[in-house]
Amino acid sequence: MIGTAAKRVDTPEKATGRARFISDVIVPGMVHAKLWRSPVPHARIIAIDTSRARKAPGVIAVLAAKDLPVKDLYYGPAFKDQPLLADGVIRHAGEPVVAIVAETIAQADAALPLVAVEWHELPVVDSLDAAVAPGAPVLHERARPAVHFRDLTSLKPIAGTNVCHQYSYARGDLDRGFAEADLVVEQTFTFPMVHHYSLEPHCAIARVDPTGITVWASTQHPFPVRKEVAEMFGLPLARVQVIVPYLGGAYGNKSYTKIEPLTIALASHVRRPVRLALTVEEGFKTVRRAAVRYRLKTGVRRDGTLVARDCEIYYQLGAYADVGPRVVQKSAYTAAGPYRIPNVRIQAYGVYTNTVVSVAFRGYGVPQLTWAYESQMDVIAERLGLDPLELRLKNVLARGEVFIEGDRPVDCDYAGGLRKAAAAIGWTEPTPPRRGRGLACTIKAPLAPSVSSAMVRLHADGSATLLTATVEIGQGARTTLSQIVAQELALPLDRVRIARPEIGMSPYDQATSASRSTTLMGLAVLRAARDVRDQLLAIGARQLGGDATAMTLHDGAIVAPAGRCRYAEALAAHFGTGGELIGRGTYRGERGHAPLGGEAPFWEVGMAAAEVEVDEDTGRVKLLRYVSIADVGKAINPRECEAQEEGAAMMGIGHTFFEQMVYEGGQLLNPSLIDYRVPVMGDLPDEYRSVLVENGDGPGPYGAKGIGESGLIPTAPAVANAIARAVGVRITDLPMTPERVWRAIQASSPRFA
Amino acid sequence: MIGTAAKRVDTPEKATGRARFISDVIVPGMVHAKLWRSPVPHARIIAIDTSRARKAPGVIAVLAAKDLPVKDLYYGPAFKDQPLLADGVIRHAGEPVVAIVAETIAQADAALPLVAVEWHELPVVDSLDAAVAPGAPVLHERARPAVHFRDLTSLKPIAGTNVCHQYSYARGDLDRGFAEADLVVEQTFTFPMVHHYSLEPHCAIARVDPTGITVWASTQHPFPVRKEVAEMFGLPLARVQVIVPYLGGAYGNKSYTKIEPLTIALASHVRRPVRLALTVEEGFKTVRRAAVRYRLKTGVRRDGTLVARDCEIYYQLGAYADVGPRVVQKSAYTAAGPYRIPNVRIQAYGVYTNTVVSVAFRGYGVPQLTWAYESQMDVIAERLGLDPLELRLKNVLARGEVFIEGDRPVDCDYAGGLRKAAAAIGWTEPTPPRRGRGLACTIKAPLAPSVSSAMVRLHADGSATLLTATVEIGQGARTTLSQIVAQELALPLDRVRIARPEIGMSPYDQATSASRSTTLMGLAVLRAARDVRDQLLAIGARQLGGDATAMTLHDGAIVAPAGRCRYAEALAAHFGTGGELIGRGTYRGERGHAPLGGEAPFWEVGMAAAEVEVDEDTGRVKLLRYVSIADVGKAINPRECEAQEEGAAMMGIGHTFFEQMVYEGGQLLNPSLIDYRVPVMGDLPDEYRSVLVENGDGPGPYGAKGIGESGLIPTAPAVANAIARAVGVRITDLPMTPERVWRAIQASSPRFA
Repeated sequence: MIGTAAKRVDTPEKATGRARFISDVIVPGMVHAKLWRSPVPHARIIAIDTSRARKAPGVIAVLAAKDLPVKDLYYGPAFKDQPLLADGVIRHAGEPVVAIVAETIAQADAALPLVAVEWHELPVVDSLDAAVAPGAPVLHERARPAVHFRDLTSLKPIAGTNVCHQYSYARGDLDRGFAEADLVVEQTFTFPMVHHYSLEPHCAIARVDPTGITVWASTQHPFPVRKEVAEMFGLPLARVQVIVPYLGGAYGNKSYTKIEPLTIALASHVRRPVRLALTVEEGFKTVRRAAVRYRLKTGVRRDGTLVARDCEIYYQLGAYADVGPRVVQKSAYTAAGPYRIPNVRIQAYGVYTNTVVSVAFRGYGVPQLTWAYESQMDVIAERLGLDPLELRLKNVLARGEVFIEGDRPVDCDYAGGLRKAAAAIGWTEPTPPRRGRGLACTIKAPLAPSVSSAMVRLHADGSATLLTATVEIGQGARTTLSQIVAQELALPLDRVRIARPEIGMSPYDQATSASRSTTLMGLAVLRAARDVRDQLLAIGARQLGGDATAMTLHDGAIVAPAGRCRYAEALAAHFGTGGELIGRGTYRGERGHAPLGGEAPFWEVGMAAAEVEVDEDTGRVKLLRYVSIADVGKAINPRECEAQEEGAAMMGIGHTFFEQMVYEGGQLLNPSLIDYRVPVMGDLPDEYRSVLVENGDGPGPYGAKGIGESGLIPTAPAVANAIARAVGVRITDLPMTPERVWRAIQASSPRFA
Repeated sequence: MIGTAAKRVDTPEKATGRARFISDVIVPGMVHAKLWRSPVPHARIIAIDTSRARKAPGVIAVLAAKDLPVKDLYYGPAFKDQPLLADGVIRHAGEPVVAIVAETIAQADAALPLVAVEWHELPVVDSLDAAVAPGAPVLHERARPAVHFRDLTSLKPIAGTNVCHQYSYARGDLDRGFAEADLVVEQTFTFPMVHHYSLEPHCAIARVDPTGITVWASTQHPFPVRKEVAEMFGLPLARVQVIVPYLGGAYGNKSYTKIEPLTIALASHVRRPVRLALTVEEGFKTVRRAAVRYRLKTGVRRDGTLVARDCEIYYQLGAYADVGPRVVQKSAYTAAGPYRIPNVRIQAYGVYTNTVVSVAFRGYGVPQLTWAYESQMDVIAERLGLDPLELRLKNVLARGEVFIEGDRPVDCDYAGGLRKAAAAIGWTEPTPPRRGRGLACTIKAPLAPSVSSAMVRLHADGSATLLTATVEIGQGARTTLSQIVAQELALPLDRVRIARPEIGMSPYDQATSASRSTTLMGLAVLRAARDVRDQLLAIGARQLGGDATAMTLHDGAIVAPAGRCRYAEALAAHFGTGGELIGRGTYRGERGHAPLGGEAPFWEVGMAAAEVEVDEDTGRVKLLRYVSIADVGKAINPRECEAQEEGAAMMGIGHTFFEQMVYEGGQLLNPSLIDYRVPVMGDLPDEYRSVLVENGDGPGPYGAKGIGESGLIPTAPAVANAIARAVGVRITDLPMTPERVWRAIQASSPRFA
């Protein structure tokens, strides 16, 4: 069962169209909301006239911020700085200002143009430079209170500036380090705003009744949503239900609270269930990844030994903080890369601008930083005349070495993985002209500490139900978690059912994020299943005679030296006419002495190698071959691990070559798939290979550890390094469009001519 | 919290119309079913032509028995003798023969007359006499297999006759007993067919998809329904979900499987969710209470000492067994009443007839038997010139006395209760002419052994959720069970939420029946809450220092000698950013040496006193005063206990004075509220009083034991005894309509003139 390519448990539903997503939910009596969004990026609201809209056919209510029945208008997982509807000030184009509730979507839509908002435009801050310039307009005049999270104890917004959050770290003596260096390389890399583009946009349906709040939500974080909603509406946690159908993709965009509290406020006001479903364009105006400018200066000895690294990182977070401050510090924590460097300084700043809000995005800031440091590793190698693989092998941390004092030592074999990547791409083979190969690796810190609980019920006929709030977002969690139960209870997979997350029913889970579910929820599931197993063996010992420790479970039966007994028989004898066993299991991460939050349960690592061919006349880069090395510890379902890696690489190809949200004067110019290019099948490399490294060294079930994000992190630098080795140009800004590559070739060719 | 009249937790929902019943459920894509029902009571089907109905507008499918996609067409909680649709033979008028599924209810209805069924009529067996007459037509030619239930191990259908089940019991020497008697009284009492008339008729919505079956059902027995459905459709239990909204009343009519499997079969066939909602008239043609003819012969000494009792009971069960065989033996087990009688013989027969199926009905056969034995107690008293109270006090079992060898000894104070009833009705006070007072008492065996599990989750903010599959049928279970959690966790009631029964999520519960929920599910809830409490105290001991055993919970905080700590603080310190405690608890009844099934966890006892005034000219009986004595052990919510008693008495008034399903030639003549009279507010006595006896001697939480059925059992004999003492006539057939009373007066008056 473990280590086999078990068929996904959601395939039959999804293949037959029976899988239920939130768009399949009908709550009796539900009505529909649409949002009037600001056409301007920065303004003070002078007046809102909803009188005409209120009279439109089918319209039930038209509400501005002041009309919302909430205890607290502001929300956010780091600072509570984001209002449900613009509260006097508009901070980005597309920000919701007025909500219309009508009997039908069409009626709500038709009433939108009848809303009249009068505003006074304010100077627009739509770039990092504009945001940190002296005398820049300040987006948030008041600092909003920080949410208490263990990993954010040091976190505070900085009033009077656009700096939303800063994080710093230092070890050793940077000046002495650089003084000892034979070569100092300093570069600035940029990574643009990128949209998640999950196929399913955000949607929520809320019902408010005397028992409390029920919200159907496309969310990765039902429990944090519950917490925030309970606070905003002044209810006990027990009175807030969050029900999560299948998600049509979620790459961080469905993390934490999004449209749920607004939908609830509307439902509360109109006293009917309300559905709010965003369009694709509205999705672009709701979430994105943080753009980053990373000035990276590295000192290195002639032999390639890294001695100092100075990292200055600006994250362009957008109009509101959302989880940005946590992205800043969690990713900046690993900004120097998985290398042995005695002298390090990291200074990271999250900055507000009048743009769409940046939120969690698969990789949680690390792709932006790895882009810089792994590109620079190749620059260093080139300058020193070293092989990039050898340079990495010389500096990369070995298993058991300390990454950051107080945190978990390195728990993987980077050198072995890099060698695997190199071997798989044919690193030492000769390359034809205009072809090149590149390598990159990364380290990502997980969410820590975190908590997950699970329950397993063994029914009277020996079939089992797993209760877990892990959200199936396409990653296959339902399958791997079911496999763990099936393995522990010696059942075929089709006798294990996994219930949907419904937090009134499902036990606590902190998040479906940070590549944690198989590993950490997996531990909770394993423990819950073993709890059932232990109860079953105790019953078996009474039934069959003998010692429970001498018994095992096999093929749905308790097997003892004295005989065997099917689960159904054992339970019937124990309970009589019915009854079932309930097992529970919890994973609870410890804080330890880790500088940020809690000790990493594992380090998520990724390595990749790319081979490209560059058309010097057009700048077009063809990705010929791609190898991804996933250190999974133990692959519970190898096919699903490979699918995760493939999906991640595809996403990496997107931001490497195409994806970029383009702003001009505070206006997003390309909020649709017409103008915003995501990867398509034709963009896949001719040859793709995932290599699963299974050293059994993860903390999860059977030695598993998390993957799923690492696969997209090394893509861009591996490709950039390959381009550099193919045609000798170094690209420092993403995406590497043909135009950008062509221009770089043009600019560099005189020097190489 | 315990012993207080806490406000019902479902009041706000129900008072505002927000409570969701099954009629409020919309499953996307759902279509509607209607049933073509037989106009004749007994026939062999020759042909079914559905071709015209199939072509009707909106019709999706028209199915007869042979078309249903089931592994087994037959179901039933005792014998699997009832087909989902008539299988070649029609056995009662109103039996479903063909199902039509259409886009709308109206379209399905419109197609019904287009179904053409050809049949050959068979002789009709619509009375007990007809059923047991030599050479009577046999309704069921083949015996169907019995379902394994612990209390039905001796149960088998008797092939070749209409006797569906027989039960017998004997002790002592009956002949010697009667020989020793100074007086032998023999009478025959009848109790007619009665409909439950819950306000909400049966309804089910079924969805079948690749994950299995989901059925929304108005059922008191979600787990037994799951079991039967899983068997009928060949699925593991884990793949059958039963979701139970609020029930609009259920008095046994929603016990076990009813329309759920048919609805599922239809959904499976049409590959869309299907809703089947019965009308009131269809309800009359679906369920009823067993009619009983009880020949009771009692031998008694001159001083009133009972010495022998011979009980011959025929239960007219209807066309199919349903739970009838279990009603037969469970009620007949107590047919001799709660009296000390050395020589007893009980012979009980359940008989098939061509009438609507009798199912579980509040009181489970005991009202029919108590009607006889408590009427006869007064006849004996009158014949011996004894006071009916004194006669009962002389013979009634004392606490600790054996009722039936091997079963639980009597656990209540009958004598004390009877004296309370007598005192409350003013037993010894003089009565004006045509007024009389009557007493009655009863004993009812519970469902045993049985199993219930519960879970309690304590959330991060210190609020709690209770997971239990006990169904709220109006009886207030959600409130009492929530009170137990609130008490054990020292929380106000509004911080405890109870989740609806959804058996994919809720832990196992055998049944919401047999007055067991507060007592037996209550124990499971108590244990689950205490499991949470123990975990909380252990956390407190680590937080506050000191010994957990020295700590208590008070007002949402752990209180130790060293200080106090709110739950939210303790959990935050223990878990970090989230996480919650999960408590579990199970009640599991033991079989013991009880003759039937398992040892009674408690005896349900009831005592009542009535005062009536009889209009001799019209036969109209006015119920002036009524007292109900409920031995509750401990009233967790006294107001709700009283409400249960009041509701039960009201129901008892119904079958005492009005209710009767009238058959003629196998046709039910009064299947509607126009012709079938249920009690209305004007039928209430001028003065009603519930007396709660709280000796703390129950096995449930805080000494509670079950009530809810006992209240309706003594009503009819108490009233009949009062009538006899008012005007000297003895009625032996229910209901006691004015006509029947008047005729009795007319018949008796010459003797008393």
